[in-house]
Amino acid sequence: MEVMRILHMNKGNGETSYAKNSIVQSNIISLGRRVMDEALKKLMIRNSEILSFGIADLGCSSGPNSLLSISNIVETIQNLCHDLDRPVPELSLSLNDLPSNDFNYIFASLPEFYDRVKKRDNNYESLGFEHGSGGPCFVSAVPGSFYGRLFPRRSLHFVHSSSSLHWLSQVPCGEVNKKDGVVITADLDNRGKIYLSKTSPKSAHKVYALQFQTDFSVFLRSRSEELVPGGRMVLSFLGRSSPDPTTEESCYQWELLAQALMSLAKEGIIEEENIDAFNAPYYAASPEELKMAIEKEGSFSIDRLEISPVDWEGGSISDDSYDIVRFKPEALASGRRVAKTIRAVVEPMLEPTFGQKVMDELFERYAKLVGEYVYVSSPRYTIVIVSLLRMG
Amino acid sequence: MEVMRILHMNKGNGETSYAKNSIVQSNIISLGRRVMDEALKKLMIRNSEILSFGIADLGCSSGPNSLLSISNIVETIQNLCHDLDRPVPELSLSLNDLPSNDFNYIFASLPEFYDRVKKRDNNYESLGFEHGSGGPCFVSAVPGSFYGRLFPRRSLHFVHSSSSLHWLSQVPCGEVNKKDGVVITADLDNRGKIYLSKTSPKSAHKVYALQFQTDFSVFLRSRSEELVPGGRMVLSFLGRSSPDPTTEESCYQWELLAQALMSLAKEGIIEEENIDAFNAPYYAASPEELKMAIEKEGSFSIDRLEISPVDWEGGSISDDSYDIVRFKPEALASGRRVAKTIRAVVEPMLEPTFGQKVMDELFERYAKLVGEYVYVSSPRYTIVIVSLLRMG
Repeated sequence: MEVMRILHMNKGNGETSYAKNSIVQSNIISLGRRVMDEALKKLMIRNSEILSFGIADLGCSSGPNSLLSISNIVETIQNLCHDLDRPVPELSLSLNDLPSNDFNYIFASLPEFYDRVKKRDNNYESLGFEHGSGGPCFVSAVPGSFYGRLFPRRSLHFVHSSSSLHWLSQVPCGEVNKKDGVVITADLDNRGKIYLSKTSPKSAHKVYALQFQTDFSVFLRSRSEELVPGGRMVLSFLGRSSPDPTTEESCYQWELLAQALMSLAKEGIIEEENIDAFNAPYYAASPEELKMAIEKEGSFSIDRLEISPVDWEGGSISDDSYDIVRFKPEALASGRRVAKTIRAVVEPMLEPTFGQKVMDELFERYAKLVGEYVYVSSPRYTIVIVSLLRMG
Repeated sequence: MEVMRILHMNKGNGETSYAKNSIVQSNIISLGRRVMDEALKKLMIRNSEILSFGIADLGCSSGPNSLLSISNIVETIQNLCHDLDRPVPELSLSLNDLPSNDFNYIFASLPEFYDRVKKRDNNYESLGFEHGSGGPCFVSAVPGSFYGRLFPRRSLHFVHSSSSLHWLSQVPCGEVNKKDGVVITADLDNRGKIYLSKTSPKSAHKVYALQFQTDFSVFLRSRSEELVPGGRMVLSFLGRSSPDPTTEESCYQWELLAQALMSLAKEGIIEEENIDAFNAPYYAASPEELKMAIEKEGSFSIDRLEISPVDWEGGSISDDSYDIVRFKPEALASGRRVAKTIRAVVEPMLEPTFGQKVMDELFERYAKLVGEYVYVSSPRYTIVIVSLLRMG
């Protein structure tokens, strides 16, 4: 399974599209905003002489959220410059995602984006602020994998990424044996599951963790070359709070999807061995794993590392003892919404293995399973938010 | 008519698509290559210390030519670095076109492009050249009009544009009268025509020339801010060699298209007044007009300015007294090919005014008219190629 080809959100504007089902991701962007604003403030204060800032949003996807992050960034910088009484610098804003992402969709809303930026700027001017006329914004798209170089050396001052770094560059391979120079990759022996689970063998845990370490190191090394010293990076993505990668917060959305798939297999609609062979190119990392990778790579210092629980619809959970009591119809409706959100993201991944024609049935069953689960439990994701400083 | 919205080539991969009908544009890129290579050589020799080059191709369109120019640029730089025995710098390659351009189409062939660049680089290495391992290339897309700023200040070293600058930012407006503060724009009174013609009133000549001067000045001013001093720019586009904008080399492709439209109007298939009101956002400039605009703007010196005739299928014409004697079926076949090339470019422009359903008939008639003309004449376009140096 080539991740480059199958890792993209559901296209277009239809009922199952990512564009129509991306509120969770939008909420995660909002959740990270405070940390992002703080990082931007430190960046702006330290770099008062720079006239042109290079900014990148990695894994922008294509939907209403695609311009949300850079829109927030521009707004924060405009406000900061106003507070600091200095002109807004030129902003070069790069949107990155894999080449299969629907960039045309984003470009169609660019004229409106530019209008909005300009209008906000004019508001300042009409209020009599000296530096109302801000520097221009230049939006570009950079198609490619962020697990590798994307930008020229020292061309960036700020990197942002939300809801993307939980995707791996590839499905982890099983243990590798070299026999007479021949490399043999075993499968993960992850029967009846599509991600790490209580029943997964320890070897699967190992290769998943290793794949994350490898990928995240390449990510950091690439960004360390692209960022100027003193540059900053704010990353938020799905992770976990406990060392165990098989607690419910880490994997239960996949567990239920595996259950839905298995129910189809039991009825002979799909092949059970296809489920055994399929593993998601996903990893929910723990803060400790993150710290380890960052320290090992050595170019970045951690300015802030937070974990934040959100419910499965992306709602923020302030109280740790949070528990929602739902009536059954409400829980089932929530299940349908959650299933739609997840379908918009994972359908392109599942289709090549299980076929397009079972998708409706699969996600109907999944919606029911999620609904039942939401009724008896209060499931949550753990969002990891990390703010990094490029040292040197 | 909003040029931003209607100026894009025919999309997709079908029979009438630009992707399938863009050999003329490809030939024009080849025609300009010698001048481009010369400019790159001067640039590289003068800037031996620069580790990262910013390069832009403006009006890249979407089709097999979209990556041709930047591919040529990378090849030339790799060869030059080999000759000069120095490492290949990092290359930031920006592809620009209007937001309605099909960028997804280009991105789909990017992995192949990167492979090709890498392979060429490896060839050098395998031949034992020291600097085989070249700096990486970073391709990005910058959607927007080149009649305005697109890039941060002094971020570019080389700008290229082929077959694009004959398109204006808007259809020129007729004479403007201010009466009691009310602006009245008259139409061009260009009856039965869709571009400048022998029958066009002098006022139409004036506003077309003025629109070109305005647009080209904005283009130069924008690029002068984006290019570093010493940066270079090579532009090639359809122009004319004579001062008169109504000679056949300047406008006859539009003249015949107007004839085809008028024949439809005579039969009541379309409205004649729609033809009267329609004017193409196009201008074939003369070398004198170019020089005037460049001198007036003042940031660039002209390193080279050439005009080069090509036949209507993009074939280079070496002998000025060139005349092809064609048999009738050959001429008609040529007419069909020329009509397809032009349809791929102007159909999105004509459709909103004349309707989608007349397009097949229109271009069938056009193909016949072009065929007849090609039989009795040897029509040609004049390609203007200009190489500019950013002074300062």
